[in-house]
Amino acid sequence: MKTMKAAILTKQNTMEIQEIPIPECGDDEVLVKVMAVGVCGSDVHFFSEGHIGDDYVQYPHILGHEGAGIVEAVGKNVTKFQPGDHVAVEPGIACGFCPACKAGKYNLCEKMQFMSGPPVWGCLRQYLTIREDFCFQIPMDMSFERGSLVEPLSVAIHAVRQARVKPNDRVLIVGAGPIGLSCIAAVKDCGAGEVMICDTIPQRLEMARQFGARVFDVSKVPIQEQLADEIAADQIDVGMETAGIVSGFGTLIDCVKRGGSIVLVGCPSADTAPIPIGKLVTKELMVNGLFRYRNTYPYGIHLAASDVAPFDLMFTQSFPLADAQKAHEMARDDKANCMKIIIHPNE
Amino acid sequence: MKTMKAAILTKQNTMEIQEIPIPECGDDEVLVKVMAVGVCGSDVHFFSEGHIGDDYVQYPHILGHEGAGIVEAVGKNVTKFQPGDHVAVEPGIACGFCPACKAGKYNLCEKMQFMSGPPVWGCLRQYLTIREDFCFQIPMDMSFERGSLVEPLSVAIHAVRQARVKPNDRVLIVGAGPIGLSCIAAVKDCGAGEVMICDTIPQRLEMARQFGARVFDVSKVPIQEQLADEIAADQIDVGMETAGIVSGFGTLIDCVKRGGSIVLVGCPSADTAPIPIGKLVTKELMVNGLFRYRNTYPYGIHLAASDVAPFDLMFTQSFPLADAQKAHEMARDDKANCMKIIIHPNE
Amino acid sequence: MKTMKAAILTKQNTMEIQEIPIPECGDDEVLVKVMAVGVCGSDVHFFSEGHIGDDYVQYPHILGHEGAGIVEAVGKNVTKFQPGDHVAVEPGIACGFCPACKAGKYNLCEKMQFMSGPPVWGCLRQYLTIREDFCFQIPMDMSFERGSLVEPLSVAIHAVRQARVKPNDRVLIVGAGPIGLSCIAAVKDCGAGEVMICDTIPQRLEMARQFGARVFDVSKVPIQEQLADEIAADQIDVGMETAGIVSGFGTLIDCVKRGGSIVLVGCPSADTAPIPIGKLVTKELMVNGLFRYRNTYPYGIHLAASDVAPFDLMFTQSFPLADAQKAHEMARDDKANCMKIIIHPNE
Amino acid sequence: MKTMKAAILTKQNTMEIQEIPIPECGDDEVLVKVMAVGVCGSDVHFFSEGHIGDDYVQYPHILGHEGAGIVEAVGKNVTKFQPGDHVAVEPGIACGFCPACKAGKYNLCEKMQFMSGPPVWGCLRQYLTIREDFCFQIPMDMSFERGSLVEPLSVAIHAVRQARVKPNDRVLIVGAGPIGLSCIAAVKDCGAGEVMICDTIPQRLEMARQFGARVFDVSKVPIQEQLADEIAADQIDVGMETAGIVSGFGTLIDCVKRGGSIVLVGCPSADTAPIPIGKLVTKELMVNGLFRYRNTYPYGIHLAASDVAPFDLMFTQSFPLADAQKAHEMARDDKANCMKIIIHPNE
Repeated sequence: MKTMKAAILTKQNTMEIQEIPIPECGDDEVLVKVMAVGVCGSDVHFFSEGHIGDDYVQYPHILGHEGAGIVEAVGKNVTKFQPGDHVAVEPGIACGFCPACKAGKYNLCEKMQFMSGPPVWGCLRQYLTIREDFCFQIPMDMSFERGSLVEPLSVAIHAVRQARVKPNDRVLIVGAGPIGLSCIAAVKDCGAGEVMICDTIPQRLEMARQFGARVFDVSKVPIQEQLADEIAADQIDVGMETAGIVSGFGTLIDCVKRGGSIVLVGCPSADTAPIPIGKLVTKELMVNGLFRYRNTYPYGIHLAASDVAPFDLMFTQSFPLADAQKAHEMARDDKANCMKIIIHPNE
Repeated sequence: MKTMKAAILTKQNTMEIQEIPIPECGDDEVLVKVMAVGVCGSDVHFFSEGHIGDDYVQYPHILGHEGAGIVEAVGKNVTKFQPGDHVAVEPGIACGFCPACKAGKYNLCEKMQFMSGPPVWGCLRQYLTIREDFCFQIPMDMSFERGSLVEPLSVAIHAVRQARVKPNDRVLIVGAGPIGLSCIAAVKDCGAGEVMICDTIPQRLEMARQFGARVFDVSKVPIQEQLADEIAADQIDVGMETAGIVSGFGTLIDCVKRGGSIVLVGCPSADTAPIPIGKLVTKELMVNGLFRYRNTYPYGIHLAASDVAPFDLMFTQSFPLADAQKAHEMARDDKANCMKIIIHPNE
Repeated sequence: MKTMKAAILTKQNTMEIQEIPIPECGDDEVLVKVMAVGVCGSDVHFFSEGHIGDDYVQYPHILGHEGAGIVEAVGKNVTKFQPGDHVAVEPGIACGFCPACKAGKYNLCEKMQFMSGPPVWGCLRQYLTIREDFCFQIPMDMSFERGSLVEPLSVAIHAVRQARVKPNDRVLIVGAGPIGLSCIAAVKDCGAGEVMICDTIPQRLEMARQFGARVFDVSKVPIQEQLADEIAADQIDVGMETAGIVSGFGTLIDCVKRGGSIVLVGCPSADTAPIPIGKLVTKELMVNGLFRYRNTYPYGIHLAASDVAPFDLMFTQSFPLADAQKAHEMARDDKANCMKIIIHPNE
Repeated sequence: MKTMKAAILTKQNTMEIQEIPIPECGDDEVLVKVMAVGVCGSDVHFFSEGHIGDDYVQYPHILGHEGAGIVEAVGKNVTKFQPGDHVAVEPGIACGFCPACKAGKYNLCEKMQFMSGPPVWGCLRQYLTIREDFCFQIPMDMSFERGSLVEPLSVAIHAVRQARVKPNDRVLIVGAGPIGLSCIAAVKDCGAGEVMICDTIPQRLEMARQFGARVFDVSKVPIQEQLADEIAADQIDVGMETAGIVSGFGTLIDCVKRGGSIVLVGCPSADTAPIPIGKLVTKELMVNGLFRYRNTYPYGIHLAASDVAPFDLMFTQSFPLADAQKAHEMARDDKANCMKIIIHPNE
């Protein structure tokens, strides 16, 4: 039996490189040699805290769900891939048969198997298998880093859809992390009139500026004050909360115009937060939550391949698999300087 | 100059019958002899507290925005009405020209003139004038009480639209007051699979039961417990908050299925309320606020004329104009026994 | 190996009862004892002409896709059914994995296996197997005839969705056959203001009248003349073509109001037909085609169980399996007197 | 009384420059000094044929509805403009009060007054008045030619909305005239994955290529053959017919994928045309007609000001008002070389 290296999370804050068997490729599956894996905020939570909400890691575990690589082998029923193809991996395998799946909302599948979500193993290993329909070809000239970026871009694409962003809309994004930046790109690509973003970290704001947004440092003055005139004139059509902070929702209720739309992408850790409900009601706002994404990969690949934003700026650090522990520590400890850390399992 | 009687709000909790001029009928207007006016919760707030939020009464004022009557005269440009027609009066006059109006969301009109909303005078008088396009013919055999009910039914209709209720949906309504009951009717009419409603007042629950809902008394056991199995099985498609209570939104976030929809009809008086945002996000809920209604009157009349629900049960008390003070005091003091009080200005 | 009786289509217009093996129940499948099968117009086409368009029967073949019955056995992975359950069978098995399936449009599945559509065998046999997720429980007190009716009702439900019928809409249906009658029920159930229907067969019009529609005999005077006033006043919101006749589309373009909606349910056999395109354009109509249905069964069962329409009137004839040949001949030859013929394979 | 020059259509094919009074500016109106007017295909029809369908010119008449200019004076109620502002003029004045207006579909207004549509006078004069809400400020550094282009861009924007074009969609446009080119820009701006266009005129195809489309000359080989592989693979999401040719609709029914969308922008002059309805039905296509546009000007100005396409290439000829006759003759006679002719009434 052939083996491969994997970054195994053995306990809180501890990742070890171990040799484990290369998985068998099922009849409907593709075996992918993993070339790039982005580190996501949720990975860092599992790494450092051992759980997200009620979702506890079952050790030993493998993190990573932003993966791209090369097709190594294909199962006998596979028709869309052949060895050598470059692919992005959509990490959430839906059953295809439950009511949510049949209604086209497969992200809400009753039996979802999401890579890196305990107990399903993720991408931080040299090889993984994936059902053919969750594997998507990327252009041969696209970097694997960009291939892995299709996952966070998918969140942004789904957010833009949930928010019903329309051409010429003016959009305010709260939070300039990887999802906030991805939202800038997705919002611009669908013809937004202006993209505004606020954060408190200067490096993130600078990157957001390079992505094409009008940026606001809210470390001292709240966005409600900085945009007072536009708010008064009902000029902000859509708000997107990507920071997962308790105050973000209320801020957007203040800022978005009557009849406008808010999408909540970030998930606040506080159980409850005070919200100006009355204003939400009388402004007739539409608010949508968001759980991951669905039907986004083909578009996400198109977007990642485009020059809508200088995506490569996001790849602030990269590490070989051997340094997975270090990568996660850095992501945990230096949010200001780490936008998107990439791990290369086969380098 | 001809005069008429009107119930003038002269100061907090004080309504006097005064003789005032009958308004001139403009070229595009209809002069309506007011036959029935329903008393709304917002009227009671203005009556007893002198304001709703930042919206203060400017005395002398006239309340009442649920009006129906008989066309007495028409302006020279009016083509759709003639004296003797029975009509329901849509009380919010939109400008027709601002961006909200042009986009079909005239309830969000920048220049909205809403009868009974200070300083625009309402319906509690013997005659009123209204722009032709906000006047709607009702069948000659429909009672004026039902004609006045088209206003709260309009709120319910708009709520059902905002909530995207679909045939066979299972809907949970919080609050069995006039709007809650109106929502039962509107929800049933569009093919809902089951309508559930909760409240703490037995009389209201009994009336809701007669309207065709499955009722839940939540005075002791929260609805989350009573519907635990259905909630666990993701069987509640839509939630409607009509009570305007702080806890209603959070309750519905708990109850509504993943991917479901919530509409907030009631407007909580508390400035902010704690809300389980994280659950709203990960359940991918859609939440819509609601400000009055738009394009509802033709359907509202059709609904009020139907036998979808025993609407007449709602008319629990009626008074002549002379007793307007008493009517508002009763509405203020005896919520349990007053569902919808009707005042007859020309009786 | 156990055997069962099946009505085998051996050549054009010839159906023989043969003994064939009872199929094995797969792990994810349910074995259903078929109690009622409705005869559909498409079955009659395959029976009498051997093909529909380019879709040719591969003999021996089994027709029938409107089936209901009793669960006889379940595969080892099946969790939602147990022997004795009464069920309706959704006949089109979608793959669950192709882009159409993932987008929630599984009726457009690339790999659709549709019972009775060559070469997939249909329901005219004593037992069939079906993947669990295409099997739907019906109430024990619902007749199997009504259970089989869920299939044509599904077409109607999908048509109503495609047409975006809204409460209070006035709807004109062309064709009072089984689909037209099903559309009356579906349209009424979602709150339509009025349902109008036209046909040339008196028996069908009488049944449509009993279903609650305003009926028009267009054997002599075209509907455009009979509804001239309403058409001039832009009062017909939605048109539904269920007759599959070449002229139906054009008729509805004439009748439906500006900004209105048309759904084409019937599929004309003529390759092309002259259509007043200019009028379609300048009236800004929305036209939707329709291929079968998706996500309709739970609602269809609810609808079939309701008293929205006197559904049992539709079951004009019934036969045991032994008379399947006779049943299809009658459906072929006596359209006026046959609304829905039911075959009982286990009687 | 002050006078101005106007290009008066006195009879078929005859336009004379006459001196007529400058109109009075109403209280809610803006007086605009007209700087640029684009010549539209419909102007050419009225000029050369005297009618479009049943819509006959009432001589003397003034054509032109693609206007931009400078605010010369404002009525006393006007708040959004002051003399000197540069503006684009939306030519269809809706009443604001009829059901269509209230539903947000003001382009279907019962009382629409459309400039240049008989008997409403158009823009080919030195001054015109327009209700404030149909006047839109353009940037001072935008040319008046581009300001006038907002009108055809509005058609394209409305077409994109009617077609529900989504990011990453692949769109096929029939016809590379001014509307076809405008559609390329509008489709690209909302994130389309690829824009394809077909025509038979080489100059138009070359310009479409410069606008960013993949172009197809269909003078010899039909588009169905040229795109056979993509059609077979269901890769064309949206079709847009802008040529107004009888065969365009059927072509798009052939090309667009199952479940896809077609918008009919052009209005064929033939009364009826043969259409493959069966294919429309079984492919479950959505088809939308389109009557002008609504709520497009702010976005249209944003788009015209952008570098999404090299819009200035479209302005192939320009003339002073004195040469209006010549301009219309050229537009009538030399379709191949005239994309968009601009007339300057104040030059």
